[in-house]
Amino acid sequence: MDWSKFRLIPRSEDFFTLFEESSRNVVLGVSQLNALLSDFSSVEDKVKQIVDIEHQGDKVTHHTMAKLNKTFVTELDREDIHALISGLDDILDFVDAAARRMLLYKIVEPVPEAKKLAEILAKAVDEINKAIPLMRHLSKPNDIMKHCIEINSLENEGDQVQRNAVAKLFEECKDPIYVIKWKEILETLETAIDRCEDVANILEAIVLKYS
Amino acid sequence: MDWSKFRLIPRSEDFFTLFEESSRNVVLGVSQLNALLSDFSSVEDKVKQIVDIEHQGDKVTHHTMAKLNKTFVTELDREDIHALISGLDDILDFVDAAARRMLLYKIVEPVPEAKKLAEILAKAVDEINKAIPLMRHLSKPNDIMKHCIEINSLENEGDQVQRNAVAKLFEECKDPIYVIKWKEILETLETAIDRCEDVANILEAIVLKYS
Amino acid sequence: MDWSKFRLIPRSEDFFTLFEESSRNVVLGVSQLNALLSDFSSVEDKVKQIVDIEHQGDKVTHHTMAKLNKTFVTELDREDIHALISGLDDILDFVDAAARRMLLYKIVEPVPEAKKLAEILAKAVDEINKAIPLMRHLSKPNDIMKHCIEINSLENEGDQVQRNAVAKLFEECKDPIYVIKWKEILETLETAIDRCEDVANILEAIVLKYS
Repeated sequence: MDWSKFRLIPRSEDFFTLFEESSRNVVLGVSQLNALLSDFSSVEDKVKQIVDIEHQGDKVTHHTMAKLNKTFVTELDREDIHALISGLDDILDFVDAAARRMLLYKIVEPVPEAKKLAEILAKAVDEINKAIPLMRHLSKPNDIMKHCIEINSLENEGDQVQRNAVAKLFEECKDPIYVIKWKEILETLETAIDRCEDVANILEAIVLKYS
Repeated sequence: MDWSKFRLIPRSEDFFTLFEESSRNVVLGVSQLNALLSDFSSVEDKVKQIVDIEHQGDKVTHHTMAKLNKTFVTELDREDIHALISGLDDILDFVDAAARRMLLYKIVEPVPEAKKLAEILAKAVDEINKAIPLMRHLSKPNDIMKHCIEINSLENEGDQVQRNAVAKLFEECKDPIYVIKWKEILETLETAIDRCEDVANILEAIVLKYS
Repeated sequence: MDWSKFRLIPRSEDFFTLFEESSRNVVLGVSQLNALLSDFSSVEDKVKQIVDIEHQGDKVTHHTMAKLNKTFVTELDREDIHALISGLDDILDFVDAAARRMLLYKIVEPVPEAKKLAEILAKAVDEINKAIPLMRHLSKPNDIMKHCIEINSLENEGDQVQRNAVAKLFEECKDPIYVIKWKEILETLETAIDRCEDVANILEAIVLKYS
């Protein structure tokens, strides 16, 4: 007999499932961003897809918050569940913001460094997506830590790409409005990678707390 | 006989009073910002008033910190009191920064979207001002949550207004310095609304912790 | 007989030593930044030195994290150790970013306000460097609080210098690219001072928690 069907108290396992759902959605959003940057056509449709994915992420976040509100949780503190699900949400916010800006600012052709940053972002969210399921087994902190370290290194790489790209804009481009637009989009992409590092820091802090 | 007059340990109720004082002061600062933007005259005087309100807010914050330092608190954790009073303070910092910048950058006439953002900000701080007194009764988390959700939705609206305003500046304005100035002021106003969302998140986290 | 040689559990004292090491490294980085701004020659070499100091800081941070991972700590919560060491690290990140940008953006001569901001930053990290050793004696919270208040006041001063400097750029400079470059570098320096205030807030929160 499967007693789990009769339990009155939802298991925190349900939250792990929600983290994984949110994390997979982040991977999907970042993959759509890469698709947009690789083939910069039908921009309005592709941006709309990314916005839809971001809305889907919001739903998972709100669902998690609502569940948290009426659930007695055992393995993780409520604050940590709150921080992690918000952190994942934040990444997509910046993916969405970068995509929307390219549409709004009537970008004709992305600068090559935008593609490079989106690729680094894809690697970072992939690391997150590998680390999240390991949260189910907090007794093995080292595997999670390895992904966090890799995310830190990707963030450094992103930082450098963005900085060099802006320096190049300053040197090569004579239209200040073009410089302002791309400086902002490149920074938004870099901030999305920063938010991955924030998630890594949240994971690290949880691991430190419970392991 | 009113025994409360004889208690040796200050009640955490005193902190709720300070939160409410700080929150009302935030509402006042935002209302002065709206007054400035509706009638952009005597700018120096009106900005000075906003700066004074921000200083008044700092005093409430410091008073709260000092009290926290020598008080045994029962209902709320010290860290949460610290986070909430700092969060309220942060909103006024950006209101103050937006106002000061309009003076410093010798703005002659505000763009219409600045007024729109200040109106959204007024709605957001009004929601906060309604949620804060409900903190006295953490047993009713749903009412607080409703205000938080409303603040989240206002933040989305602000984000959209700011983004469209910047896109319009890029398209319509040929003076890059004017674009840079207004882009920054619009972003500062939008950040003030973001800080309202941060306060909503702090309220949410407290509600999740204690309810 | 010195029993401490035989203890099985590392003392949290070891963490205080690491905080002090990190803090001294931050002071060193900021002093190199001031050296660069006082004599703006051999820029590449001087920026390289600052980058090296930042890498050294990263090593202390990672060493602290690794130690935290295998240590049972008594006096401080793991989360607080994590927050404090990350906070110190963040200051140097912005010192490093400001220095690198001056090199990347091919700056010929720093604006005078950059020097002023670096001087304020030096005062702020000096206050941190005085407050950190006091963490060993959390029973005397007032001395730590005094340094935190001083850092808050330096942050206000930095904010004002940066704001006025940007206003001056807008008024006096006709080259938008020059304005964008310096606006960013000045903001990066001001953010480094903001990060000192964040460390002050972390110290304040720890003091409130344990005193």
